[in-house]
Amino acid sequence: MADRLALFTGGQFADSHAKTAHGILRYAPREIVAVVDDVHAGRTAADVVPYARRDTPIVATVGDAAARGADVLVIGVAPFGGALTAEWRAAILEAIGAGMHVEAGLHTVLADDPELARAARERGVELRDLRAAPADLSVPPAPAERPDVRVVHTVGSDCAIGKMSVTLELDAAARERGLKSAFVATGQTGIAIAGWGIAVDHVISDFVSGAASRLLHDGAAQAPLLFVEGQGALGHPAYSGVTLGLLHGCLPDALVLCHRAGATAIDDYPDTPLPSLTTLVELYEAAARAVRPARVKALALNTRGLDEDAALDAIERAARETGLPATDPVRFGAAGILDAVL
Amino acid sequence: MADRLALFTGGQFADSHAKTAHGILRYAPREIVAVVDDVHAGRTAADVVPYARRDTPIVATVGDAAARGADVLVIGVAPFGGALTAEWRAAILEAIGAGMHVEAGLHTVLADDPELARAARERGVELRDLRAAPADLSVPPAPAERPDVRVVHTVGSDCAIGKMSVTLELDAAARERGLKSAFVATGQTGIAIAGWGIAVDHVISDFVSGAASRLLHDGAAQAPLLFVEGQGALGHPAYSGVTLGLLHGCLPDALVLCHRAGATAIDDYPDTPLPSLTTLVELYEAAARAVRPARVKALALNTRGLDEDAALDAIERAARETGLPATDPVRFGAAGILDAVL
Repeated sequence: MADRLALFTGGQFADSHAKTAHGILRYAPREIVAVVDDVHAGRTAADVVPYARRDTPIVATVGDAAARGADVLVIGVAPFGGALTAEWRAAILEAIGAGMHVEAGLHTVLADDPELARAARERGVELRDLRAAPADLSVPPAPAERPDVRVVHTVGSDCAIGKMSVTLELDAAARERGLKSAFVATGQTGIAIAGWGIAVDHVISDFVSGAASRLLHDGAAQAPLLFVEGQGALGHPAYSGVTLGLLHGCLPDALVLCHRAGATAIDDYPDTPLPSLTTLVELYEAAARAVRPARVKALALNTRGLDEDAALDAIERAARETGLPATDPVRFGAAGILDAVL
Repeated sequence: MADRLALFTGGQFADSHAKTAHGILRYAPREIVAVVDDVHAGRTAADVVPYARRDTPIVATVGDAAARGADVLVIGVAPFGGALTAEWRAAILEAIGAGMHVEAGLHTVLADDPELARAARERGVELRDLRAAPADLSVPPAPAERPDVRVVHTVGSDCAIGKMSVTLELDAAARERGLKSAFVATGQTGIAIAGWGIAVDHVISDFVSGAASRLLHDGAAQAPLLFVEGQGALGHPAYSGVTLGLLHGCLPDALVLCHRAGATAIDDYPDTPLPSLTTLVELYEAAARAVRPARVKALALNTRGLDEDAALDAIERAARETGLPATDPVRFGAAGILDAVL
């Protein structure tokens, strides 16, 4: 029997850090019976987050989800720093007690936690760590050994602004056009959606590029056109290393710069202002050039929260500022950006 | 009783990848009774590598080193990729059999290797993994919470070109001037020399900046002037993520760009040409600016292998090209660079 998922968001379903839950709701071809969120219980997923596009009911407790037939609890929030909180531990233990498997992409490895591991073993359920890295990672082969595929890579001004969604929209648009393409997952949500991938932010830092390179080679075996989701941002005080290692490992032909309209500072570090879009384009291109040149070909603007006029206005201003084609591909379709990157 | 070290280099003592052995010989205030290297056996360390500055005898086997009283075998080579080879495994087992502790900074964790762990347990010796990361690492605090110290950070055009040596020479020169300063180790050799530090290339990639930030705070508790050794290079196809995460985590005031005179490509990736020095200066400054601005204040040129005239000529050309003060601080003293970064 296929999994019947409950997505746990611990009161944060409306927050951008619940991006794992949002992404699975919108993009994963999986059955989802409930969102577990005490703050938003009683409404539906799409009511609270229209982006989710599913009328999945939101329930208050893990027990409510189990009563609806859920057999897998998915941790649907990517907390800053990625560690397990005490509150979530209680929910996970409740799920295990109800006979549910638990799927998570935290830095805290569930299976390494003695209490959770013992509870899961006694109840006969699985702890699935989406961020678990392959054991045999190493440094990448020479860039010259790069497979002959076209690689489009999303980069951004910050975390949690929609790089994965843009990547999935581009892949879907390409396949609608009859192109053979594949989405390459580099983070826990992408892996939960695609069913394969490596969470490059969880590998040993010396092997970030090696992990990205392996994904490039694995992806090339599937399709000649790859859309590789980006992670972090080159100007992020905590995660910039992941961003650069991924960029240099996946050796893209074209970059799409993702940005949240109106954002002026790093969300997790409000004292760190964002560089201008033009500066970001220059920074990404200069960084790429050191290993393999790639140009930023288009701008993907996340206009969530803006009305349509304001969204179109923000897009026009960003396009004028950078001289690049721009749109919100999640809201207005990915065709324009796809044209720019092919 | 203090450790009596044997440095194992597996035939590669003359190679730049034996930088761990070279650095310990030159800078560590530790007793070293032998280098174990079958290719160079019979000579002395300084004979083969003048930089080492010690007349430590080179012997052919671990048994020879044990006969000279060695009680710790240090793996003195940083192999590309950092994994343990079969040949070295044999040497490590021989050392354990002879009752020696083993100290290493490989990505292969010695204590996690069932065969080595069992052998060490049976013989009652320690396996010391210098790259073992603190268990409680996370993301860094806000850059605004940076301690009020002066931070000088060495960056480079490639790996294994002498960033650690430059950092140690600057720290020594500062202390000779009566300044209170500290060397901040970010790699296995630096840790073997300084006795503290974190191998930032071995932490989970999401926590590279967090590890660097912790070193910054720990260093600030020791001295108001910190010299933080760099890792990798922003243009390195495998390690650039480590470089950028470290740069953004240690929040430097001033950068010193290190380069090997005459190098035109990444040593481990000969198809990847090095950017010009001017381009590298721009790249490092643009990358730093996204989180906290820092300028490249001086150039440290590694002129090993050049005669004095050629070295001085290379230094003059590099200074002219970049407009920066330049010297080889290991060969000609670090005073000039120290003036530039204070």
